[in-house]
Amino acid sequence: MGYSTISNDNDIKVCVIMVGLPARGKSFISQKIIRYLSWLSIKAKCFNVGNYRRDVSGNVPMDAEFFNFENTDNFKLRELAAQNAIKDIVNFFTKEDGSVAVFDATNSTRKRRKWLKDICEKNNIQPMFLESWSNDHELIINNAKDIGSTSPDYENSEPHVAEADFLERIRQYERFYEPLDPQKDKDMTFIKLVNIIEEVVINKIRTYLESRIVFYVMNIRPKPKYIWLSRHGESIYNVEKKIGGDSSLSERGFQYAKKLEQLVKESAGEINLTVWTSTLKRTQQTANYLPYKKLQWKALDELDAGVCDGMTYEEIEKEYPEDFKARDNDKYEYRYRGGESYRDVVIRLEPVIMELERQENVLIITHQAVLRCIYAYFMNVPQEESPWMSIPLHTLIKLEPRAYGTKVTKIKANIPAVSTYKEKGTSQVGELSQSSTKLHQLLNDSPLEDKF
Amino acid sequence: MGYSTISNDNDIKVCVIMVGLPARGKSFISQKIIRYLSWLSIKAKCFNVGNYRRDVSGNVPMDAEFFNFENTDNFKLRELAAQNAIKDIVNFFTKEDGSVAVFDATNSTRKRRKWLKDICEKNNIQPMFLESWSNDHELIINNAKDIGSTSPDYENSEPHVAEADFLERIRQYERFYEPLDPQKDKDMTFIKLVNIIEEVVINKIRTYLESRIVFYVMNIRPKPKYIWLSRHGESIYNVEKKIGGDSSLSERGFQYAKKLEQLVKESAGEINLTVWTSTLKRTQQTANYLPYKKLQWKALDELDAGVCDGMTYEEIEKEYPEDFKARDNDKYEYRYRGGESYRDVVIRLEPVIMELERQENVLIITHQAVLRCIYAYFMNVPQEESPWMSIPLHTLIKLEPRAYGTKVTKIKANIPAVSTYKEKGTSQVGELSQSSTKLHQLLNDSPLEDKF
Ligand SMILES: Nc1ncnc2c1ncn2[C@@H]1O[C@H](COP(=O)(O)OP(=O)(O)OP(=O)(O)O)[C@@H](O)[C@H]1O
Ligand SMILES: Nc1ncnc2c1ncn2[C@@H]1O[C@H](COP(=O)(O)OP(=O)(O)OP(=O)(O)O)[C@@H](O)[C@H]1O
Ligand SMILES: [Mg+2]
Ligand SMILES: [Mg+2]
Repeated sequence: MGYSTISNDNDIKVCVIMVGLPARGKSFISQKIIRYLSWLSIKAKCFNVGNYRRDVSGNVPMDAEFFNFENTDNFKLRELAAQNAIKDIVNFFTKEDGSVAVFDATNSTRKRRKWLKDICEKNNIQPMFLESWSNDHELIINNAKDIGSTSPDYENSEPHVAEADFLERIRQYERFYEPLDPQKDKDMTFIKLVNIIEEVVINKIRTYLESRIVFYVMNIRPKPKYIWLSRHGESIYNVEKKIGGDSSLSERGFQYAKKLEQLVKESAGEINLTVWTSTLKRTQQTANYLPYKKLQWKALDELDAGVCDGMTYEEIEKEYPEDFKARDNDKYEYRYRGGESYRDVVIRLEPVIMELERQENVLIITHQAVLRCIYAYFMNVPQEESPWMSIPLHTLIKLEPRAYGTKVTKIKANIPAVSTYKEKGTSQVGELSQSSTKLHQLLNDSPLEDKF
Repeated sequence: MGYSTISNDNDIKVCVIMVGLPARGKSFISQKIIRYLSWLSIKAKCFNVGNYRRDVSGNVPMDAEFFNFENTDNFKLRELAAQNAIKDIVNFFTKEDGSVAVFDATNSTRKRRKWLKDICEKNNIQPMFLESWSNDHELIINNAKDIGSTSPDYENSEPHVAEADFLERIRQYERFYEPLDPQKDKDMTFIKLVNIIEEVVINKIRTYLESRIVFYVMNIRPKPKYIWLSRHGESIYNVEKKIGGDSSLSERGFQYAKKLEQLVKESAGEINLTVWTSTLKRTQQTANYLPYKKLQWKALDELDAGVCDGMTYEEIEKEYPEDFKARDNDKYEYRYRGGESYRDVVIRLEPVIMELERQENVLIITHQAVLRCIYAYFMNVPQEESPWMSIPLHTLIKLEPRAYGTKVTKIKANIPAVSTYKEKGTSQVGELSQSSTKLHQLLNDSPLEDKF
């Protein structure tokens, strides 16, 4: 019996084909879609035409002239790049069992899009066009600045030269650009975003997978904001090395709770934010001294350990030795008897993530496993690694989602707490062998700025 | 601390203003939105202008002439009806603490819509227009037949007379109808559905509540289908009067499992369907002999009884007498220590309902509390009643969602099983006092066709 908690459109293959002039957020949206779907265990990959272009063009300079549609030599090089990309996309579906590919390119003309649609359909892939359209001049200029300073095409250019060249590149594209049109393109599956989400046009969306992508895209807000993550303060159960339960904070846990406001303010000043907690006592006690609006989510409750709830790892190893091993072997998939797996937690967290995308500043006070899952979403941590990340108590994590990645800052409260970290192959807790797998150190070692 | 698992837009008031010619499914969509939101504990109410029209028109005959826009007398009566409706809508928000109102009327002209928008905004209500637009002649004729035979306007007419008059009524409206237009109406919050969901235009949707309504509407498929609901076959725990756990079926439970295919085929013939089960043994054993595609959902697992898992009601009453009473007093809200409430179950079932709306025929094999929640969605059962409904073992329930309600058929397998029904105020199981509240008999007594 197939295991799924989302849908049974298991054999559907979708190719999201981006459409839009330069600096319309195509790469931004592409990356987010891939990250979201991967987090939900849907095999997804992005194919950026820019990388293929740089591959084929060898030493041809990639300035605005390269994008002059009347220059036939360069036109051919650009064609070749697109062909190579689509070849790899088809391979991704047919040979690598992919579910969703995103083709990140301008795809400006109806002719080009028809060509892509035909290739997809010949290969049993559903083409879904996603246009980002904008006439908001300020937005475009700001995006151009962002891109000018980060694109590999301008690695060796001065920022203002890069920006000017980039605006010229936009003008080259504008001369030939044909936006998606509900009349002329009425036979295509598409979603068209106008000025971010001022207006959204959705045409012939049919499958569940497509409608999930649509809903996600409709919830993206590319506005700067902070998200803080914290585990609850040290609890009585933590001290007793027990998992699960609904115990109160320890003395030191309360100290952390009282210091939390100061940590938040030191990291961002006086700003507006909402605090989200689980329904368990220890997260609410941790939030207790914060002067912000608070909200409880059942979905933020700790991973349910089922029959092992309230036990120590040593007791579990003794009483359920096979389960103990099975969990160490595949921690992401292992489901406690009568309880949950990491996969189960991710699925119940999906609405939390969707809401986080929409919200402004939020501080989430939750539990070790849940925090790992949320962190994995923002930092694109693979499933083999996320359950093994070390997330110490009494540490506030600040995330700043940016155009091409999420910036992480770790703020230690300097209030001692036990370690609840359990390495693979032992029932002892504590950050023991600093050598071994290193996986669990992911968070500690992560550079300030991680690209996703 | 406010308790919510969905959002913190708690003080937002949305008025969904339907737009569309007759027979475009406006009432159908309105009813579904109300039912969905109410099930999610969002206070929502539908205001149908037809009812107000019939109120004010006294003995004026309501044939197509009544809808002739050039007849000023009747025009005034129709105006008055709209005014009365909007007055009640404003009262619903300001005096009854409503969250979502749906104004079910044609609202054909830009002038009328501007008038409604202004009234809403003056009262701090967010107006959201929802147009159903269609040029699919066959669809419209079929809808007209449906309506002609069911509308109170045609109670005393022959079907073919009713249909002809109704088509004439549509023509009267068509002369003045102004569809929503992304250019002309670009300042309004709206969703426009073209030929059901061939194309969807979404404009200026901002709040979470609005986007939830949009997502739900995009998932509605008004196609005929069956949904079957069944509890698992009798389990060992059922026989031992224990709740929760993950026990196997009893001998008689297996008999039910083996008979299930026959029951399904007798009720619908040879058709295509998918079987959904929970992740627990007893539902999978019940599905075991069915020759259909199967899918497991963690979200279909039984309500988690927390510390009471594996106990009998008698033991619970003895060991946790206060909890036992508290649950009887408010069964919907009561959350088992370390477990769940009915409200929690509804929230985790939301994706299941969304997927059910999209799917064709589905047979769901699940558990008593979960089945109550799903049944409550389709039959619009209020929260005070749904946890008390009697849903016997070894009984297959067939639901047929129709234009104005859901038809229920109950198919008994005639295989004996214990009763797991517990009445209020006792720890004994079994359908005891046939007199008392009667609430739990809801299902047994429900007429074949329930209007929602
Ligand atoms: N829907 C949107 N519309 C416009 N801009 C957006 C949108 N979403 C994100 N952005 C902004 O776009 C910027 C990133 O632009 P991005 O590199 O993704 O553009 P691009 O379309 O891929 O350009 P190019 O064609 O040069 O690759 C970010 O500053 C981001 O905030
Ligand atoms: N989006 C839709 N577009 C067209 N028809 C639909 C849609 N959704 C449901 N229907 C169909 O519409 C029929 C019900 O019509 P309904 O009574 O709701 O129309 P109405 O717009 O309220 O008409 P009236 O203006 O006369 O009240 C059902 O047969 C249903 O299947
Ligand atoms: Mg790009
Ligand atoms: Mg109607």
